[in-house]
Parts: sequence; C-alpha cells; structure tokens
Amino acid sequence: MEAVVKAMENDAANPGRGSHQMAVRASRILFDARKQLGKLFRIANPNDIAFTVNTTMALNMAIKGILIPGDHVIATAVEHNSVRRPLEYLKQTAGIEVTYLETDEQGHLDSKRVEEAIRPSTKLVIVNHSSNLLGSILPIADIGSITRKHGVKLLVDAAQSAGVAEIDVEAMGIDLLAFPGHKGLLGPQGTGGLYIHPQVDLVPLLHGGTGSQSESAEQPNVRPDRYEAGTQNTPGLAGLKAGVQYILHETPRKIHTKEWGFTQRMMEGLLAVDGVRVLGPDLGKDRTGIVSFVVEGVDPSEAAFILDQHYRIAVRSGFHCTPLAHGMVGTLETGAIRASVGCFTEETDVDALIEAVKEIKRHYS
Amino acid sequence: MEAVVKAMENDAANPGRGSHQMAVRASRILFDARKQLGKLFRIANPNDIAFTVNTTMALNMAIKGILIPGDHVIATAVEHNSVRRPLEYLKQTAGIEVTYLETDEQGHLDSKRVEEAIRPSTKLVIVNHSSNLLGSILPIADIGSITRKHGVKLLVDAAQSAGVAEIDVEAMGIDLLAFPGHKGLLGPQGTGGLYIHPQVDLVPLLHGGTGSQSESAEQPNVRPDRYEAGTQNTPGLAGLKAGVQYILHETPRKIHTKEWGFTQRMMEGLLAVDGVRVLGPDLGKDRTGIVSFVVEGVDPSEAAFILDQHYRIAVRSGFHCTPLAHGMVGTLETGAIRASVGCFTEETDVDALIEAVKEIKRHYS
Repeated sequence: MEAVVKAMENDAANPGRGSHQMAVRASRILFDARKQLGKLFRIANPNDIAFTVNTTMALNMAIKGILIPGDHVIATAVEHNSVRRPLEYLKQTAGIEVTYLETDEQGHLDSKRVEEAIRPSTKLVIVNHSSNLLGSILPIADIGSITRKHGVKLLVDAAQSAGVAEIDVEAMGIDLLAFPGHKGLLGPQGTGGLYIHPQVDLVPLLHGGTGSQSESAEQPNVRPDRYEAGTQNTPGLAGLKAGVQYILHETPRKIHTKEWGFTQRMMEGLLAVDGVRVLGPDLGKDRTGIVSFVVEGVDPSEAAFILDQHYRIAVRSGFHCTPLAHGMVGTLETGAIRASVGCFTEETDVDALIEAVKEIKRHYS
Repeated sequence: MEAVVKAMENDAANPGRGSHQMAVRASRILFDARKQLGKLFRIANPNDIAFTVNTTMALNMAIKGILIPGDHVIATAVEHNSVRRPLEYLKQTAGIEVTYLETDEQGHLDSKRVEEAIRPSTKLVIVNHSSNLLGSILPIADIGSITRKHGVKLLVDAAQSAGVAEIDVEAMGIDLLAFPGHKGLLGPQGTGGLYIHPQVDLVPLLHGGTGSQSESAEQPNVRPDRYEAGTQNTPGLAGLKAGVQYILHETPRKIHTKEWGFTQRMMEGLLAVDGVRVLGPDLGKDRTGIVSFVVEGVDPSEAAFILDQHYRIAVRSGFHCTPLAHGMVGTLETGAIRASVGCFTEETDVDALIEAVKEIKRHYS
C-alpha cells in the first residue's frame, strides 16, 4: 500500500511518454517491477514480460495471439474458465481443436497423458500450475520437457502458484507464463502479466500507442512495447514490485512450506468432522494454499453466508469458474466451499474455521 | 488517493466472486463507480459500461468487437494510434477498409464530410472528441445525427474530453464511448472504460471467468460481465469513483471554462514570443486543455529537457502517437511540445511556462 501511495503522490506521470523526471520515475517503477519478476521466475530478459490488468487478460493474449485455424490444443479439465472460454470461442469461430485431459480425482495429471495426446497439428499445451478448485500441483517441468521434445509450446496458468511454487521458465520449459499480481505476489488488484519466450511471437491483443515508433501505423516489434499498448497501471505495478520484493526476501519455498502446514492443519481438523469431504490431494500430499470442501447436508452457499455473518470468515462458495473440474470430483450439482490460506495466515485463523464448520454441521445439517 | 487506500485496506476482495462482506463491498465500489460515470455521460443503465485498464483497451474492445471482413470504417486524421493501429491491423488481416478524413489545420472537421464518406458497407465512424495534439473539439452531436440517420455506429474516443466536455451519449448519438480513468476523470492510472449501447453487441475482447454462469463454457450475455472477464482493478476504480464524484460536483462546464481560460492565457503569452507557433484552434476558439507549440530554432525534445531540468515544468515533446495529425500541421519532422492544463492548474503555473519559453528562445535558438 505504501508503494502504491508513493507512486500516486510522486510518480504519477505516463511511463515511456514524456521524458521529464516524473515520467522517468514512472518508467523506472515498471522497469524495477519487471526486474523483480524476472528474478522470481528466472526470466533472463525482463522485457519479455508484458503487464496486463489480470491473469485472464494474459491468458487471452497468449491463446488468441498464438493460435490459428487448424491448430490443436491440449488442456486439462482443471483449467479455469479464463482458459476454457477463450478455447471454446476459438473452437467455434476459428476451427481450432481442443483436447481436455482429465486428471485423477485428486487433481493430479500423469505427464505421459500429455505426450499421448500430441498430434501433428498440436501447437499449444495449456496447464494450470495449480488447480483453483483442488489445490493440486501439476508436473510442469515434466510436461515442459515433453513439449520441448515435440516442438509444441507450453502455456502455464500460474494464477494459484505464482509466489508460492518454484517457477523457473527456462528449466521448466515454459514458453508462456500468465500470472496475477494480486494473489500470491501480494500486489493490488488490477495487475498481472504474461511472460513470452523470446522466440515466441504473438499477435498483440491490443494495438495502440506505446510511446515508441509513434510515426508507424504498425505495432512496434520491440518488447515490452509490442504487448503493452496504452497507459499502464503505474501505482498498481509499484505495489506489485513491493510484493515481489517481499517474496524474494522470504522465498517462495518458505512461504509454501508455511502455507502447506496450514492446509494440513485445516484438513486434519475438517476431516475429523463427520460428513465433511475435502477435495484435492490427500493429507500429506503437496498442494497450494487452497482447501475446498463440502459439508454433507449443508448447502455451500448457506455455509459461506453463516461463516461470513456469524464468524467473520471469508470463503468462496459455489462454482469456481471451473465446471469440468467440478464434474470430475462430483460437485457439479452442489458446488463447494473454498478456504484459502496465505503467507499472513495464523494458526488461530485455521482453528477458528474448523470450529465454525463443526458448529455449522451440528446446527444446520 | 484516500479512496484507493481505503479500498485496499478494507475492501480488497474480488467483486462478484465471494458473497462475504468484503466481496460485497468490493462489488459496491464497482457499482458506485459505474453509477457515477452513468450520471456524467447520461448513460441510462450503468451496466452498459465495461471497465478496462485504459482507453486503448476500450478502443480495441470496440473496434475488434464490432468489425467483420468487408466492413468500411470512417475515421479522422487526428485519431490517436490507439485507433489507427487497430484499424491498420484489421485492414491487413481482415480486409476492412478505412477512410481517414483530414481536418483543417486547426483540427476542425465539417460533419458533412462524414456524410459524404458513408458507403453502403460503412459500419462504423470513429471520432476523437478532442485531438490529443491540437486540442480541437470535434462536432460529435452533428456527426451522431448523421450516423443515426444512416444506421452507422459511432465510436467516440473521449481520452481528452471525458470530464471536461459535455458528453451525453443519448443526445449525441454515441453508440460506443471509450474513456480513460486517469486523465480528466482524476482517477489513478490503470482505469478506463467503454460504454456500449444496449443494442450493440460486441465479440468480447477477453473471454474468461466472470463469477456468473460459471458452469457455462460461453461468455455470459449479461452486462457488464460479458465484457469484464477476470479480476477488476477495485482500488483503482474506487479512486475513479471519487474523481468522477468531484467532477459531478464541480461540473465539467465549470472545469472546462477554467481550463479554457488558462489555455488562452498560455497562448497569448506564447504567441507574443517571436518564433513560437501554437498549433490547433486560434485564440478565442474553443479547445480542451492542450496547447501544443513549436519554437523556431529549438528542438522540442531539447526544450522539454530544459523545461524539466531547469524549470521543473513537465511537458511532453516529440510525436504524440498521432502521425497523420502531425503530417497535416507540418510537424512530422520536428514533433511538438505539448503543455496541458488541468483543473488544479494555477495562473502562476501558466506564467512560469511562458517565462521559461521566452528564456529558452533567447538562449538556445
């Protein structure tokens, strides 16, 4: 928040447009944010990162920018609607073909399944690094070595993993990485980005002014300008930079270990309540900070309402923009309750949720 | 700034996703921002406004969402690259045709020229409400009555006019209105939007999660969800809401009158300096708060550098993402210096600029 305010107070000019000190400071904010993100994701050239308003825009930029009629895409059944809806749209309008690979019920995917699904026309594999419903972590590095071998591009949706799972775009063979600013990276809403491998060229989602090659009617080729038309969210990106600096200092590994501990505590507590079913990986298995569950005899929306009104606990209920995943785990009729932990969660928060669920089960089912 | 901080501190949940109090407050911010904007632009149903990260995204959403192969578009030579580059891209890839109407040297356009340019295949007319180089104001209402008569849609780029010129989408016949949050509306960078007439349907620029109809593979038809996939910039939009409230209180007319007075004072002062040429409408004529000029014998970039370093005056120099306009007014080789006034400018600011330009002319030309 301090970084956002500082940017609004002192640096609120348009980066890359004027050459005066305020504009230079604004450019510096974007440069620094890119540099920190480059460090976090092991991206050699930070200019290969384009900022977006959210992960959805990054995914649209990647999907609509790379696919042409006749292309085949492999995705998974745990993709978010921000992947599925663009794909379904292109299926209808541009004749692309899509294979959705089911995971097992815990949300795990055997990378061999990806290799088996590759066809001569396969251009792109899209994998959610971690399911936003199940919390499972998918084997990106294994899939990356398969896509590299077959000359297929790999797009990773890091909406749930950025900041908490190790991401190394080179070592993991990631060609396109879409990430949010406001979740694990601790930035404000309205920020996010897309890493685009230097050898991948996308048709820009936005054409417009970049402050560079202003006299040309075409979008410049130089990065990041090619993918960043219009005024950027400078104060938001100042906040994102501060968030990423914090994460680099703490390390994603340490944050993940802490969060994982909380998910295990939460799962143990919830599983001890009669009639509670926890979705995703079994106790003891790796997952991100998401624990989705259903309480037998209690409507998830009602449970969420009581948790909020009576216990002041904020959870999301219903469907989580991922209908295929709900279908796989048998919650397409009811939806589910999703509780998330973060790097500032405390044990007492987790225990309060468990106690609340116990009481709700007792009183309302 | 206070509104942005308050939103980050208290309401930083995802609007439209959870149903807990924080999410409801976040939804309320978006609802209120839309309502205020609806009041300002006389939009009957605020849900016909979709938020974007900037005007460029709004213009891309409109242009790419409405045009199909074979369509003819009429635009002007004072359009920004955020209009010209999408059009040139569609010219090359989708076979649309574009007519760019030149304005006179002051940036004025006779609306009859629009009517003469309409063909049976004309689907869209795009007009910059005010030129970002010249400050001239284009006759939107006249053009709107022509486009309505001929069943052609009208897209207005309000990047320079929102908040300072009267905009009434119904009375002016505007079908699509793209506006920034961070200029005349006093919001933070990273905000903007597009008004879409209820009878106009666009192919969404972004497909993805909306928190609504989560089980469907298709983008929902309900507005604003149809055009707002992914997490919105809640804190930024809280700031935009506060900005628009201020403008509604002051009234665009009052702000415009004040700004116009400053432009006239600036022009008088600059025109009294030997060798200074001011672009755009003559003294005494209407214009927005932009005064672009060139100083004979002084490179605009050098002048801007001196203004910044020596006088602490921030101007933009060079080309202003509008090459056709520069071509029309004879500054395609040199570019121009652009000084802008706003509703918080003071007379002493204007006088300081005039004095500085005098000194620069004396010492450097």
